[in-house]
Amino acid sequence: MNIEDRLLAGDKIACARLISMLENNDKEAEEILKKLYHKTGKAYIIGVTGSPGAGKSTLTDKMAKKLREAGKKIGILAIDPTSPFTGGAILGDRIRMTDLSLDEGVFIRSMGTRGNLGGLSKATSSAIKVLDIFGCDYIFVETVGVGQSEIDIVKMADTVLMVLVPNMGDDIQAIKAGTMEIADVFAINKSDLDGADKTKLEIEMNLDLNDSKAFRPKVIKVSAIKNKDIDTLLEAIFEHRDYQMRTGNFDIRRINNARQEILDLAKEDLINLIMKKAVENDFLNTIVNEVYKRKLDPYSAKEELLNLLLN
Amino acid sequence: MNIEDRLLAGDKIACARLISMLENNDKEAEEILKKLYHKTGKAYIIGVTGSPGAGKSTLTDKMAKKLREAGKKIGILAIDPTSPFTGGAILGDRIRMTDLSLDEGVFIRSMGTRGNLGGLSKATSSAIKVLDIFGCDYIFVETVGVGQSEIDIVKMADTVLMVLVPNMGDDIQAIKAGTMEIADVFAINKSDLDGADKTKLEIEMNLDLNDSKAFRPKVIKVSAIKNKDIDTLLEAIFEHRDYQMRTGNFDIRRINNARQEILDLAKEDLINLIMKKAVENDFLNTIVNEVYKRKLDPYSAKEELLNLLLN
Repeated sequence: MNIEDRLLAGDKIACARLISMLENNDKEAEEILKKLYHKTGKAYIIGVTGSPGAGKSTLTDKMAKKLREAGKKIGILAIDPTSPFTGGAILGDRIRMTDLSLDEGVFIRSMGTRGNLGGLSKATSSAIKVLDIFGCDYIFVETVGVGQSEIDIVKMADTVLMVLVPNMGDDIQAIKAGTMEIADVFAINKSDLDGADKTKLEIEMNLDLNDSKAFRPKVIKVSAIKNKDIDTLLEAIFEHRDYQMRTGNFDIRRINNARQEILDLAKEDLINLIMKKAVENDFLNTIVNEVYKRKLDPYSAKEELLNLLLN
Repeated sequence: MNIEDRLLAGDKIACARLISMLENNDKEAEEILKKLYHKTGKAYIIGVTGSPGAGKSTLTDKMAKKLREAGKKIGILAIDPTSPFTGGAILGDRIRMTDLSLDEGVFIRSMGTRGNLGGLSKATSSAIKVLDIFGCDYIFVETVGVGQSEIDIVKMADTVLMVLVPNMGDDIQAIKAGTMEIADVFAINKSDLDGADKTKLEIEMNLDLNDSKAFRPKVIKVSAIKNKDIDTLLEAIFEHRDYQMRTGNFDIRRINNARQEILDLAKEDLINLIMKKAVENDFLNTIVNEVYKRKLDPYSAKEELLNLLLN
């Protein structure tokens, strides 16, 4: 059987293989996705983000287990944009998932950048499609980082879950402030710690200030390690899903995501096309050297480069 | 006096104004930078990165104070890529710097993204130039986040300082693994906490594994709050600077940075040029809708869009 048929038959190895091929920009794999694209759109995508150390992986595990009990097929993509150099992904995190990964109905994959800025976002959206075709009912996209590129990735989801923990200091407050707007559901993990109620209250107050949003995100206290209140959290996620289905926001979100994906793909191709031309050109070395020696400023150098490339 | 002369005369308000103008892509400000670019290259740039909550701001404050005692002029850029929505910067962090900011010889600025992915990196490199012209001897570029875009920013520095704290859990270990390669000096802050020696040992062991690097980064235990061992840390930074000067690595690094900056500027212009054309075109809405309805796959849609744009 070819890889395409094996994927459709639910073969995990074929699924993993296809994702790897797409990560490496394999043209054959892209052709398979083109051909099977009409089979996508069935999975519900849940983005899981939040501060480092908040326990996102453990919480994702527990949600996945609950959904497995209900007979659902699950995909988990753990995105690690903090490893641009090692090119790899976090083993430690994934080891926690060993028992889940032995389950035929769960597909787990860690993805890291490979030095390519736009690459991770593209690879993630391809992997989501593969898992959708593979037959996953729910796909979790979990990001370790907290920067702009991570936010772009988590925005691919239908519901964004923000995971926080009590008492994480100033930086964490800052992260919270910056990402409040993308969250559809908040989870306060490690809810048995002192300060959990205070953190919940802070978020609720923040949401009060930002009442322009039609949908009011729920703030749920959970304990991933103690497997506590996971059901309540999943209910809040489903409530957001149902709200979106009822109001048509689901379609609007997916249309926006389709637009963004097409533009991102086009951008990447354009940049590769033009940068290849630039780097191959001796002219670039000449102007770089002049800028380094302060004989030319970088803005004028850029203009000279663009003139060369566009003519 | 015009803003250019005021900047050269050391006027802090003019300096702040010019950075704001550059953040807003003001053409006049860019012309000023072009004209004064030959005056840059004197400042030494120190990137400060590390996990959230590690105390980067406090540590930067303390290093700045020490350098002030030696009569040096200091610039501090606090980059906050986690606020793409609020568009702002972290007030809390900066409040800690009040006494420093009253000092005429210190310029402090927080910078956040404004929804524009490439924007923060460009704005930071412009701000570095302004502070260099302003006459700063040392410019600290401090990043809050830990993702790819933050790493790109911190790579603009001549020396990269990575700040860690003991006992931060799995995610922090992951961050460390992903960013080990960019650090020239490690600081283990909050050195009075249990586990500081263990964290130092872990990093040293990691460096042992990665012995391909000609320069072996120092690992320094400090306490920013207690103002302890800041001198030792600065010495390690200077040692890295001297190593680079001696070996010519300094020039290689700056040439690479100049190349990267020119390419980034060119990329941004190209994307704006072409995306403007794409978004203005009704054709985009048509194909987005077809992709959403699964009548067309995103890869073929991208090709159709590129055909339209490039012809």
